[in-house]
Amino acid sequence: MSANDSVRALPSWTDGATRDAIIDFVASVTDGPGAVPVEERVAVFDNDGTLWTEKPMPTQLHFIVQQWAAAAAADPSLAEQQPYKAAVTGDLAWLGGAVDKHYAGDDSDVKVMIGAILGSTADLGVEQYAAMVADFYRDARHLTLHRPYAEVVYQPMVELLRYLEANGFSNYIVSGGDRDFMRPMTAEYYGIPPERVIGSALGLGYDEASNQVHYHSTFDFMDDGPVKPVRIWTRIGRRPIFAAGNSNGDIQMLRYTQGSAQHLTLLVHHDDDTGRGDTPYDKGAEQALAAASEHGFTVVSVAHDWASVFPDPAA
Amino acid sequence: MSANDSVRALPSWTDGATRDAIIDFVASVTDGPGAVPVEERVAVFDNDGTLWTEKPMPTQLHFIVQQWAAAAAADPSLAEQQPYKAAVTGDLAWLGGAVDKHYAGDDSDVKVMIGAILGSTADLGVEQYAAMVADFYRDARHLTLHRPYAEVVYQPMVELLRYLEANGFSNYIVSGGDRDFMRPMTAEYYGIPPERVIGSALGLGYDEASNQVHYHSTFDFMDDGPVKPVRIWTRIGRRPIFAAGNSNGDIQMLRYTQGSAQHLTLLVHHDDDTGRGDTPYDKGAEQALAAASEHGFTVVSVAHDWASVFPDPAA
Repeated sequence: MSANDSVRALPSWTDGATRDAIIDFVASVTDGPGAVPVEERVAVFDNDGTLWTEKPMPTQLHFIVQQWAAAAAADPSLAEQQPYKAAVTGDLAWLGGAVDKHYAGDDSDVKVMIGAILGSTADLGVEQYAAMVADFYRDARHLTLHRPYAEVVYQPMVELLRYLEANGFSNYIVSGGDRDFMRPMTAEYYGIPPERVIGSALGLGYDEASNQVHYHSTFDFMDDGPVKPVRIWTRIGRRPIFAAGNSNGDIQMLRYTQGSAQHLTLLVHHDDDTGRGDTPYDKGAEQALAAASEHGFTVVSVAHDWASVFPDPAA
Repeated sequence: MSANDSVRALPSWTDGATRDAIIDFVASVTDGPGAVPVEERVAVFDNDGTLWTEKPMPTQLHFIVQQWAAAAAADPSLAEQQPYKAAVTGDLAWLGGAVDKHYAGDDSDVKVMIGAILGSTADLGVEQYAAMVADFYRDARHLTLHRPYAEVVYQPMVELLRYLEANGFSNYIVSGGDRDFMRPMTAEYYGIPPERVIGSALGLGYDEASNQVHYHSTFDFMDDGPVKPVRIWTRIGRRPIFAAGNSNGDIQMLRYTQGSAQHLTLLVHHDDDTGRGDTPYDKGAEQALAAASEHGFTVVSVAHDWASVFPDPAA
């Protein structure tokens, strides 16, 4: 596929400098004197806020809230205390606040959430957990858009994944989200197989009796900020030439990618006010926006560069 | 490629039950009622002793010995103490003994070696270390066979990698060796790209000033025994359907693979006495051979199943 094909590339992207920058970059690394060998065409994408919406709260938090609500239903005394209270009453303000505090550098509530993740996986085999998560994706509806999570992916980014793939790129997710919470949906939603999903991780062990890999009740690492370049090396063993993120936790990944002789780095900026349920926000992106100016990340304006945000459910 | 092609598949494998088992398995998972989707055709291979020789000592130890000898040359007082003394005098007995002790469950000398690996990587960026290792592979000669390491790979196993690949498999290395010591050669020697190399790992950090991922002076994990299934999950996110190993440290990986509905597990048994410099040995494989009997791993007899062991240097 190229910009000259009869079908217009990246159809949900508006004409303009951002779309041109993508198309020109891809053309420059696939042909001519600056061509990059196919095996080095590595592209990395943050997930929450980059490939799909993370408002009003990240999808994983929705899953955890369901776990908490189920726990409180089983033991009503829990319903009086946080975080179960928020889950039972649907108090999104507390939950959203936990994420905002994380972006502001305060992980106290996020640690409560991590504890809940540890609790929801304790003693489970990885394949059991994957089946639970797959059930969630099948049944859950986004809290404000009321559609399946498959339909709150960003349509322009899905088109970008396909466009890069058609031009020989290998696409990876590099997310602060739990790796094993993403894997059950990435192939279907993004065309990204499990071996290309990089994320935060819980401790694991091998149990000989059951012949299963299972979760320990430990947290292994948070794949965010300076950890992202480290996980890119351990998992891929190459420096990417393309990266896309949307928040402060993506700065180091974008900077690392700029260490490649040829590179394109995108920062998705949620400056839209379209009432799609994806309210405008810069919280957690202040430093990333400043870094974009300083280091030359290409800022993607959701309001201006995207003709549509989500897939057309009728399609 | 199939067994019916005019070119005989797996040419360095002799006719017999082992070769038949491989060909029958591949046929059964690529076609007919037991066909496995391409994305699930995951094959995992141990490296030292499975894909190339590990005698008289693993290649990485040769590299480390060169580092020690260089350190002793720079500081002659070191030459009087182990392990530098062994490096300077070429005392292979001490070095081989360290590996034998590891297989016998005593890692005291292996810890000396790990300390040396930490020392040889301290303060290095991962790309610098990769360049050093690539230099070693270019210049070094195997200590007893006196040929480049590219020519001490097991020819029948390289043919097996290509055969599986031609039938839609994704091949991975899952080795106790240092991941970053293998990556600089696996694409050339085995056709396995860096993102499919799983191995032991040193601690890493991201240095913003240099925009490099670099080594910490810490050991992260040893990818051996029960750790192999864990690393397979973290890196691939699927249970393999094919596995090959040669020693006690591979038992859990082989057992884990047997958890797939369809599977083939190979245990390479070094029962040859051909004077190729690859002397017969069962040390470190006693439990694996017992497990093969108990659990039905297919034992590959180097003496009987392989028509040749190494590539023909004249080819």
